[in-house]
Amino acid sequence: MQLFDVHILGCGSALPTARHKPSAQVVNLREKLLLLDCGEGTQEQWRRSGLGWQKLGHVFITHAHGDHVFGLPGLISTMGLMGRTAGLHIYGPAELKPYIDVVLSCFCQLLSYEVTFHVVDTRKHAVVFEDRSMRVWTLPLQHRTPCAGYLIEEKPGLPHIRREMIDHYGVPTWAINRIKQGDDWQMDDGTVVPHSQLTSPPDPVRRYAYCTDTMYIPQLASLVEGVDLLYHEATYSSEDAVRASKYGHSTATDAARLAKDAAAKRLMIGHYSARYDDETVLLNEAKAIFPNTILAKEGLQVHV
Amino acid sequence: MQLFDVHILGCGSALPTARHKPSAQVVNLREKLLLLDCGEGTQEQWRRSGLGWQKLGHVFITHAHGDHVFGLPGLISTMGLMGRTAGLHIYGPAELKPYIDVVLSCFCQLLSYEVTFHVVDTRKHAVVFEDRSMRVWTLPLQHRTPCAGYLIEEKPGLPHIRREMIDHYGVPTWAINRIKQGDDWQMDDGTVVPHSQLTSPPDPVRRYAYCTDTMYIPQLASLVEGVDLLYHEATYSSEDAVRASKYGHSTATDAARLAKDAAAKRLMIGHYSARYDDETVLLNEAKAIFPNTILAKEGLQVHV
Repeated sequence: MQLFDVHILGCGSALPTARHKPSAQVVNLREKLLLLDCGEGTQEQWRRSGLGWQKLGHVFITHAHGDHVFGLPGLISTMGLMGRTAGLHIYGPAELKPYIDVVLSCFCQLLSYEVTFHVVDTRKHAVVFEDRSMRVWTLPLQHRTPCAGYLIEEKPGLPHIRREMIDHYGVPTWAINRIKQGDDWQMDDGTVVPHSQLTSPPDPVRRYAYCTDTMYIPQLASLVEGVDLLYHEATYSSEDAVRASKYGHSTATDAARLAKDAAAKRLMIGHYSARYDDETVLLNEAKAIFPNTILAKEGLQVHV
Repeated sequence: MQLFDVHILGCGSALPTARHKPSAQVVNLREKLLLLDCGEGTQEQWRRSGLGWQKLGHVFITHAHGDHVFGLPGLISTMGLMGRTAGLHIYGPAELKPYIDVVLSCFCQLLSYEVTFHVVDTRKHAVVFEDRSMRVWTLPLQHRTPCAGYLIEEKPGLPHIRREMIDHYGVPTWAINRIKQGDDWQMDDGTVVPHSQLTSPPDPVRRYAYCTDTMYIPQLASLVEGVDLLYHEATYSSEDAVRASKYGHSTATDAARLAKDAAAKRLMIGHYSARYDDETVLLNEAKAIFPNTILAKEGLQVHV
């Protein structure tokens, strides 16, 4: 299986606590790093994670609330001080543009690399980034301000070589890469061994859905159906359902319902309100509906 | 002596390290808190310090470099979430205004209190804030962008009551506050005991000078002459004097020379470059010129 990991840098909510940092996650897909949200202190959490700066090319911001973006200026500046030259692409709602513009014009006149901001339409489910390894889709969410989650979908890898067939036909090592790419193999006597006989299908593609901040949206389930890992905010317990609704957030029950509706393989909850000294109450609530649930935690690394 | 303390929240420079946070200090003068600079993570450091949020009324920013201001948006937002209603006044160079404006318009539409930004003239030595307890003066500094240090000067306290004279003349307790405020005391037989006989002069006023970021400026000495505590940046050791000059910073030698020129009572150095794993080299360099030098350190509390 190729690398597809999520590193939690922060999973608290707007009011900071001693236990949790504001929202930020790094997705490592085949050694390409994506940053999902960038709350204050992200650069410090990033340094603690031991991940390299240079592999980060794309940042996806869900919405223009401070606990999801106040770490961006420091991250951009520090990467400049570290001598970065590769461009950085930031994706997010239009509401963020004035902030990004001012940060760049006030503090980054001498920046050693280019920062490009891409506006995403938070009302659409659309591909906003694509390369050889992945597609990133927006997921329309419902919060107090325009907000998009992101679905990261890996592209199919190469087929696996069937070692016993390679040995059987005496295929030399130099030919293996070509066969992986789709070539057939022609033997010395002219017999053609088709590619399909020499390989088995690639691993199934995996998908990670990052859904925060949002109320429970039943129709989101169809967009994230069958995802390998669903991160869904669970700011409150169901006892605070009225508050969740008032502030455009979800309860742990909401998150679990969505995971169940979507037949997700696993659920990770986060974006905990500062009112919980212990998130076990949220975990238990979600597990009652969707047993395969885990709690996000700073420093946690999860395989998708 | 009345309370006049400095709390170091951060004393690193632009490139963050695991050892130091970016610039931020809190001055506690008679239970009124001033914040000097506000690098990323200041709100977290503030929480660790145990200081209350409500006593903060005024923030003084030296210049528009990220390591001195990227913590402002989070601090402003969090105080709003905590239900602050008292206005907050921020002082700094004009270059900061677009940033403050965007932060307020993008992220603080529903803020529960008012934030007022006051432009300071970084070329002048002038009083920019004054109340019953203190005056705050700008100190013109020389950096790569307009930059002002700040001089915090307490106002004279009340005179001390001479206990032996109070007893001698039989002055009742109820009269003591009036005498402290300047009243004479009239005895039953009509004799007037002058205020000056009943009191001794108040404590001498103390002054704290906060000078960062800046090159060595000989003429700064006259503005901070005799200060009780001088904080002066010492980003580099004298071995890196060329680099210090190039980036508009000081060496530890520069800081100590200024303290000596100004006949400061004590010197605290900070704003350490990330290149030093141990600031003892900077301390020793400064002490060779100005022995009464200490190193700033996160969590340090210093009496002025």
